[in-house]
Amino acid sequence: MKPLRFALTPGEPAGIGPDLCLLLASQPQPYPLVAITSRDLLTERAAQLGLAVTLLAVTPGQLPDQPAPAGCLYVWDTPLAAPVQAGVLNRANGPFVIETLTRAGLGCLNGQFNGMITAPVHKGVINDAGVPFSGHTEFLAELTGTEQVVMMLATGGLRVALVTTHLPLREVADAITGERLLRVARILHADLVHKFGLAQPRILVCGLNPHAGEGGHLGREEIDVIEPALAQLRAEGIDLIGPLPADTLFTPKYLEHCDAVLAMYHDQGLPVLKYKGFGAAVNVTLGLPIVRTSVDHGTALDLAGTGKVDTGSLQVALHTAYQMAETP
Amino acid sequence: MKPLRFALTPGEPAGIGPDLCLLLASQPQPYPLVAITSRDLLTERAAQLGLAVTLLAVTPGQLPDQPAPAGCLYVWDTPLAAPVQAGVLNRANGPFVIETLTRAGLGCLNGQFNGMITAPVHKGVINDAGVPFSGHTEFLAELTGTEQVVMMLATGGLRVALVTTHLPLREVADAITGERLLRVARILHADLVHKFGLAQPRILVCGLNPHAGEGGHLGREEIDVIEPALAQLRAEGIDLIGPLPADTLFTPKYLEHCDAVLAMYHDQGLPVLKYKGFGAAVNVTLGLPIVRTSVDHGTALDLAGTGKVDTGSLQVALHTAYQMAETP
Repeated sequence: MKPLRFALTPGEPAGIGPDLCLLLASQPQPYPLVAITSRDLLTERAAQLGLAVTLLAVTPGQLPDQPAPAGCLYVWDTPLAAPVQAGVLNRANGPFVIETLTRAGLGCLNGQFNGMITAPVHKGVINDAGVPFSGHTEFLAELTGTEQVVMMLATGGLRVALVTTHLPLREVADAITGERLLRVARILHADLVHKFGLAQPRILVCGLNPHAGEGGHLGREEIDVIEPALAQLRAEGIDLIGPLPADTLFTPKYLEHCDAVLAMYHDQGLPVLKYKGFGAAVNVTLGLPIVRTSVDHGTALDLAGTGKVDTGSLQVALHTAYQMAETP
Repeated sequence: MKPLRFALTPGEPAGIGPDLCLLLASQPQPYPLVAITSRDLLTERAAQLGLAVTLLAVTPGQLPDQPAPAGCLYVWDTPLAAPVQAGVLNRANGPFVIETLTRAGLGCLNGQFNGMITAPVHKGVINDAGVPFSGHTEFLAELTGTEQVVMMLATGGLRVALVTTHLPLREVADAITGERLLRVARILHADLVHKFGLAQPRILVCGLNPHAGEGGHLGREEIDVIEPALAQLRAEGIDLIGPLPADTLFTPKYLEHCDAVLAMYHDQGLPVLKYKGFGAAVNVTLGLPIVRTSVDHGTALDLAGTGKVDTGSLQVALHTAYQMAETP
């Protein structure tokens, strides 16, 4: 069996991504992990943080098959357009960020890497640089020619996938269509089987309305849209429970007997997950032909270069990517 | 100082309310607590459960000043219209349920009681009986001539109040008006001061949209509606933080420094609270001229008469009502 190998993108160079990668290097990883970023950036940030990390240069033609020793980090050098000051955004480096993601994504597609783990990018500064960019997820969907992806967050045994993600609340109800529910639930089920190794995953599905509509008294979407879609999915052999009231579903009685929760929208599912996970959750993109996980936090510009950052979420993101890639 | 005294309404007679009241009687309460229901119902349910509870009859003219001893329960007998079989709804007893709530509510208004604690009712069967009824909260608002009430749930130090409650999700965005925000936040603040004894309560406010709108990219209600309302409330001396993204707000960093969370809608705030509290949360109605708390669960008809019920939520509801009434 070919050894596994992973790509790590530190993302926004002025944010805490480079810091997290450097802090991570103090411990050895079980697989070779290649940071795709500027070598100069890492050298300067390590000096700022007072960290002694040995940067081991690698190239696409000579990628490592063994994990780096503790204190060392593999780097596929990707040049900056302008020097970086920690905490200060510079639109000149927008295309640099895109280049690191492209290298990682294409490397996953062509077999150089078995998965990619991403630290946060800053959407605004990339767009300011004239590069239309609405997020890692959408970028990787396009790069890999994927029509529908699904955002799932996970922490300590709880997995929450979303039917809709970054939509204004007033647009959510109309976005919950039977077609979308079918596509999202099929991807969730398939990836739980093939990327998480669960033979017969059980999925709990939230209703859209409070009390899951209470028999139509608090909204009819459960009756008109969600239940018919779930019936069709069950007929395909997918094990679904619901639609359940969101404030009943997130209790041990239900959670103990499920592999994932499918929430209808962002603030229905993620507050519980972040409450449970505080700082140690992973964001997984399902539906891609590659393995991609991410930290669940932002660029934290005010903390870049201070050393006051926690690698908890990155560690969970790494561990989850390893797990997914190990699944036969 | 006049001794405190409380009313307890077991609610739907075919549900678990009577069971909970009987189970509760095994332990003494710190204050006299008067169950307002049918004495026959309690006698029969106690026999069904195999519980030895002594029912002590009281009347509105002779209410107790001392707590009942362990194993005893004060009962203000309120006659049923028809015999009750545990687990089987009977519309004939709809008006009976209303009568128990009326006795408790008016008793709080006229000083017989210092607060009322309610077990669950079944809205459907009361309406089937021809009595328009949309819930305890609305009923008590009308009985006490209160225009605006606020629903707050609490468990283990976390309090979550809601700007909107039982609305279909597609109606939520339009229901978040500046006027409503002002009314709800003022009531929340006032009751935290006067009923919970917090001199200068700090309230965290959720945004309406994911990421609190992300500067207008994911919805403009934060900018157009919420922020102006919060500015006005701050000018009145109310300590508010927000609008914050709901999935950031419910983390220890924020929760440790607040007295209550104000969520914009049901499934934004309650899943976290129920996750934290599973079975031991209390529902408090703010804005009333009386103290009213409730369990956070339903009638559980299938469990009535089985003894397989947990008094956890009722205990928290009692404790909270005592606390609120004790606040000078």
